[in-house]
Amino acid sequence: MQSWKTLSRRTILDYSQFLTVEEHAVELPDGRVIWDWPWVITPDFVNVVAQAEDGRYLCFRQGKYGIDGTSLAPVGGFLDADEEPLAAAQRELLEETGCRAAAWVPLGTFRVDPNRGAGMAYFYLARGVHRVAEPAADDLEEQQLLFLTRSEIEAALASGEFKVLPWMAIVALALQTTED
Amino acid sequence: MQSWKTLSRRTILDYSQFLTVEEHAVELPDGRVIWDWPWVITPDFVNVVAQAEDGRYLCFRQGKYGIDGTSLAPVGGFLDADEEPLAAAQRELLEETGCRAAAWVPLGTFRVDPNRGAGMAYFYLARGVHRVAEPAADDLEEQQLLFLTRSEIEAALASGEFKVLPWMAIVALALQTTED
Repeated sequence: MQSWKTLSRRTILDYSQFLTVEEHAVELPDGRVIWDWPWVITPDFVNVVAQAEDGRYLCFRQGKYGIDGTSLAPVGGFLDADEEPLAAAQRELLEETGCRAAAWVPLGTFRVDPNRGAGMAYFYLARGVHRVAEPAADDLEEQQLLFLTRSEIEAALASGEFKVLPWMAIVALALQTTED
Repeated sequence: MQSWKTLSRRTILDYSQFLTVEEHAVELPDGRVIWDWPWVITPDFVNVVAQAEDGRYLCFRQGKYGIDGTSLAPVGGFLDADEEPLAAAQRELLEETGCRAAAWVPLGTFRVDPNRGAGMAYFYLARGVHRVAEPAADDLEEQQLLFLTRSEIEAALASGEFKVLPWMAIVALALQTTED
């Protein structure tokens, strides 16, 4: 299959570090050109499924503006400027939980929106997680730290307690591609 | 936990049916107000993990503007105006594959971006899928229809062949919450 080509681009909304919108002229594989293709630039982010030394999974219960009520959530956050994804994952784990991990397993990199962009998601499994400091998160959200067994996190996944797409996605992927 | 409140909203980019951007004034649970919270409105969509009567999974291999090369993909598409999610899932399955299903299992509803919105994802498992017509898709993408066994789709998931977040997410969720 031929790939799509970007013929030109211009910024149509330069809002903040959290949102830029561009208009692209795009040539399709069959040669057609779409002149007004919107492209959304939001920060790349990491999420981490963190498993403690006793096998339990660290999760938060937190509220977010985009959801009703609260959701279970993994560790996660935006990449800083010029930050490598793994470094961001390690930083977020430390900031949000005060923990480091004995081993880091990359679970994949995923485009959020196949048409409009909206950043990339970098997913990691952190194993052998252990406390080395106090959490230092200064996020906007209130959150509670929970420790769930594998059967508890499987049940939470199946019952829809992870309400946000990337959060559900990394948990399902980690459970599906690991056995313990 | 207290929920977040929308104090006001105004449209700052009314681009097309595919993208509107609003600026919200948001009151946080602790009483702080953020006056310039960007909120992205993109279409809600469905994805469908479709399993044929012989147990194999229907997937596409397709290119998209937002990815390099091609990706494996489930059935999916945007909801039409005032369309119910299940009706959209049934329509997309019929349009893209010419198939109907004997049973539909809802897999959940997920907010794409917990901070900025970006639509909702409605996920379904379609079982007992069987051909009743010719596919009638008129999407922009070239795509090939594949039939994968459970072990083949598990291997494809683990090796990163589903490159798009919602596509990986629904496949991981369907495999994690079903046994066959």
